[in-house]
Amino acid sequence: MDELREHRAVPGTAAPLDNAGLVSRSISEVFATRGRSAEAYHPAFAQLWKICGERIAGGKRIRPRLMLDMFAALSDDDLPPAAIEIAAAIELLHASFLLHDDVFDGDLTRRGSLNLVGLLAHDERLSHERPSPQRLHWARSCGILMGDLLLAEVHQIFARVDVEPAMRTRLLDLLAHAITESVVGEQLDIGLEDGTVVADTATVLEMCRLKTATYTFELPLRAAAILAGADSPATDAALAAAGAHLGLAFQLQDDVLSTFGDPAAHGKDAFSDLREGKETAVISAARMTSAWPEIEPSFGTGSLTNAEGERLRGLLRECGAEAFVRGLIDDQMRALHETLADPASGLPDSARQPLAALAGRLDGRRS
Amino acid sequence: MDELREHRAVPGTAAPLDNAGLVSRSISEVFATRGRSAEAYHPAFAQLWKICGERIAGGKRIRPRLMLDMFAALSDDDLPPAAIEIAAAIELLHASFLLHDDVFDGDLTRRGSLNLVGLLAHDERLSHERPSPQRLHWARSCGILMGDLLLAEVHQIFARVDVEPAMRTRLLDLLAHAITESVVGEQLDIGLEDGTVVADTATVLEMCRLKTATYTFELPLRAAAILAGADSPATDAALAAAGAHLGLAFQLQDDVLSTFGDPAAHGKDAFSDLREGKETAVISAARMTSAWPEIEPSFGTGSLTNAEGERLRGLLRECGAEAFVRGLIDDQMRALHETLADPASGLPDSARQPLAALAGRLDGRRS
Repeated sequence: MDELREHRAVPGTAAPLDNAGLVSRSISEVFATRGRSAEAYHPAFAQLWKICGERIAGGKRIRPRLMLDMFAALSDDDLPPAAIEIAAAIELLHASFLLHDDVFDGDLTRRGSLNLVGLLAHDERLSHERPSPQRLHWARSCGILMGDLLLAEVHQIFARVDVEPAMRTRLLDLLAHAITESVVGEQLDIGLEDGTVVADTATVLEMCRLKTATYTFELPLRAAAILAGADSPATDAALAAAGAHLGLAFQLQDDVLSTFGDPAAHGKDAFSDLREGKETAVISAARMTSAWPEIEPSFGTGSLTNAEGERLRGLLRECGAEAFVRGLIDDQMRALHETLADPASGLPDSARQPLAALAGRLDGRRS
Repeated sequence: MDELREHRAVPGTAAPLDNAGLVSRSISEVFATRGRSAEAYHPAFAQLWKICGERIAGGKRIRPRLMLDMFAALSDDDLPPAAIEIAAAIELLHASFLLHDDVFDGDLTRRGSLNLVGLLAHDERLSHERPSPQRLHWARSCGILMGDLLLAEVHQIFARVDVEPAMRTRLLDLLAHAITESVVGEQLDIGLEDGTVVADTATVLEMCRLKTATYTFELPLRAAAILAGADSPATDAALAAAGAHLGLAFQLQDDVLSTFGDPAAHGKDAFSDLREGKETAVISAARMTSAWPEIEPSFGTGSLTNAEGERLRGLLRECGAEAFVRGLIDDQMRALHETLADPASGLPDSARQPLAALAGRLDGRRS
């Protein structure tokens, strides 16, 4: 989902801030405040907040933007401070998940730059040497701890947000739901990779929905409706369904783009998913075809050459896996449009536009 | 701190429950409720809640008991449901920390039994074989995720507790403080082991206070005062100080007992700390003596024989490290008694008794 980058983060400025700027400022304030108190403890602890704050400052704020767009669509009121705080908290939740995800995946980089674990693993003076096991252990442990701190911070923001108690309870319920589903999704993703969970297409699709769609789309959309006071059961259900369809469509498109797309556009190594043996929807579709015995021996081979990668890509295309997944994306988009069109969904017209606009982005996506 | 086991967990019973029984029931209800909703997702997710609930059921509930004892000392009111819930949440916080701690330490057992990671790492059918790297990765990742879920649950309980908003904010502040200090302590502990943090006695003592004393002693004591409405700034500060002194004394005594105590009483391998190269206060004291060059070559040697362990123990005793740490314990106890005796502390007499009783337990401790 990192690939949704039509917007850019707004840098701090003396001019009045737009909504995204207000969210960025709210996030910066968390890191500034926590970073200052961290200094009283130990330089290593202060460094954790500092690095994490720097990493997060370059974020694209997709989730907060979606939340604020939906709030504006559902409410004529000015944006309340509570909405800015919840939007910032959702971005911190994303950062917390990424920190733990990088540890699970053993990744030292994210989108071409060293991540927090990578920065801590490499002693600055010896940045080109392979980190020692002790150094890697330290860096990964710090990644887990920083994820814990952000997860705690997210809850503190939700718990203190200045809204009516019933509204706060609704937001806390939604947060619990999003965290539960994201954790199940992450667990399934790891299980699929480690071979403890069987890789069938239904499980892979469910994993994608749980791991990414819930917190990236459903959470911001439903939080906006709650804060706008527009969360009738029908609207809430429609936004949940729309979020799931959109999220799954985007995630499936990620799988298609990272396998078949232009590496210059998506910024990843062209064959990294194939080398890592990532259980994408494309792969689970290929497993069902007669081409699989030809694909399997090279799939997940760390030493996969580019020529071999090209050959696998051709096989995945020819066996129909690409077309199958593109069909699944169309399915999700059709389901989305049905949800939006259904008058019984209780979705106000105002809310349909940003969702349709988001769906429209899918077509032009190259990364 | 696991060694404080004068109390036993009260098993579920048809008779009216005492306070500890109410806390146990509250914890069981969390696992029952969450376990049921987990089944809707995936068996692997439901298994996580099930195993974790079984592991936690045997806990000694030291922290909840301390909280409830202090509440009773500070308030004539009946124990409110809010106090039971917060006591249960503090136990869940402990469980969350243990889950991540076992991952950092690479431990598959805790106090002689397989922990959650150990249970998941060993395929039941092949329980005596060494787990594969994939299986270990799966188990450790699940340990991290379960810790995340419990950390989220703790915050949900604090955020929803049915007390006045100002009291809830005080409890949330205290929770944030306890989590911050525990994370710093854990980070320092890992850094001391991995060699990224320099091992001097001051840092080792600070690590012990932060990692264990804050959430084990300070958090329950101060939470009790908040819930009892007895948290004047002076009382709050006195309980914080008392918690820090008690916690550090217990932790230092743990170090002494696990190095010099009777393994039959403390239940650990007699030389495990020496084999693992654990940076205890005893070791940091020995580092300052002329005996260190003789100790160092064997310290942290996985293959340390019992005879060699006995020799190291003798050296640690002769060089004065044992006496030094016992002196530090006396120091903390003196500081505790001064805190309790100081009339300016604002500590009511009623609160002195449980703290003095807890201090008294230190003397007879063998494990």
